[in-house]
Amino acid sequence: MAININETKSAEIKPSKSKSGKGKAAALGPPIIVAATKATSDPKGGWKRGVGIFDFVLRLAAIGAALAATATMGTTDQTLPFFTQFLQFQASYDDLPAFTYFVIANGVASAYLVLSLPFSIVCIVRPHVVGARLLLLILDTVMVALTTSGAAAAASIVYLAHNGNPNTNWNAICQQFNDFCQRVSGAVVASFITALIFVFLVVLSAVALRRN
Amino acid sequence: MAININETKSAEIKPSKSKSGKGKAAALGPPIIVAATKATSDPKGGWKRGVGIFDFVLRLAAIGAALAATATMGTTDQTLPFFTQFLQFQASYDDLPAFTYFVIANGVASAYLVLSLPFSIVCIVRPHVVGARLLLLILDTVMVALTTSGAAAAASIVYLAHNGNPNTNWNAICQQFNDFCQRVSGAVVASFITALIFVFLVVLSAVALRRN
Repeated sequence: MAININETKSAEIKPSKSKSGKGKAAALGPPIIVAATKATSDPKGGWKRGVGIFDFVLRLAAIGAALAATATMGTTDQTLPFFTQFLQFQASYDDLPAFTYFVIANGVASAYLVLSLPFSIVCIVRPHVVGARLLLLILDTVMVALTTSGAAAAASIVYLAHNGNPNTNWNAICQQFNDFCQRVSGAVVASFITALIFVFLVVLSAVALRRN
Repeated sequence: MAININETKSAEIKPSKSKSGKGKAAALGPPIIVAATKATSDPKGGWKRGVGIFDFVLRLAAIGAALAATATMGTTDQTLPFFTQFLQFQASYDDLPAFTYFVIANGVASAYLVLSLPFSIVCIVRPHVVGARLLLLILDTVMVALTTSGAAAAASIVYLAHNGNPNTNWNAICQQFNDFCQRVSGAVVASFITALIFVFLVVLSAVALRRN
């Protein structure tokens, strides 16, 4: 009888031991997975931080370009050395509505860029914060439209000032206002560079959002 | 002796049973978590699919606006009912480089929109595919810049045609070419609507990328 009981008990023990073995393996499973995801999330965070730093540097470059465009266009003022009894020949940016819009658009873009720097820093310090990144992406897209429209409107007028248009009887004015035209052309180029940097910033934010 | 053996065996069995109980609980743990994530990922997929459908509809609207802008500007051609011995007064889009650029930019945007429809459908069918969504976002951003620049360049010239500019001695031509000016203005408005839809598409793609 005693031997019989022993046999049945040992038969009961064996499966329970194997079950506890399985249980241990299962209980050990999740921590291993967690450790693996932690190990891969650290380089991701570093990668995102690199994107954030690049974003910050690009923003500084864009501030330079936008301020240069605003200042160049805003201070351009040429007075010709000859004048008649009734009028003095003078050209400044507010003679043409397109140039005024250009100055406003680039001024707004400069102000936005300066205000966006803290958000960019947040994205460097906390690479996993999605809200700030998304806000920057949306506002950057609006700024792409704003700076491109300002630059294109001014470029269209600058082209007209350089070449004129015989079909509409609009004459080129750059023969007279040569210095004015050159400075304005420089401002337009600076504004297009700003717009290009904004496009890069949008793409950068999108890539950073993707690897979330 | 037999009772003693029985007692030790029963003492051995009890902890092993409790171990197997823990093991079962641990083994049951992961499947529950998997079920929970599956249950929450389904509504997310549905939400993304809704965004994808909205994206597709917006693209169809943008095709309409871009084609309208291209066709209106491209077919605008006004010949005045009076002429001199040497020249006939005629205005068409290719008289002004800004309008030519406008037609090219809107044509490219229309072609891109048609080609982007399959990718948009991919985003509806497979809401979790990130590559197609990211590609659309980047190309949409470029298209924001392209359509906005075309529209702004043309708008700048249209403003000049309507109002002229006394400072540069450029006269308004819309008194003569009234029909031409009205059609061109319509085309510019259609192009700005296209650009606005592109901005919405970028924002939509960014939001869809975020909830990945």
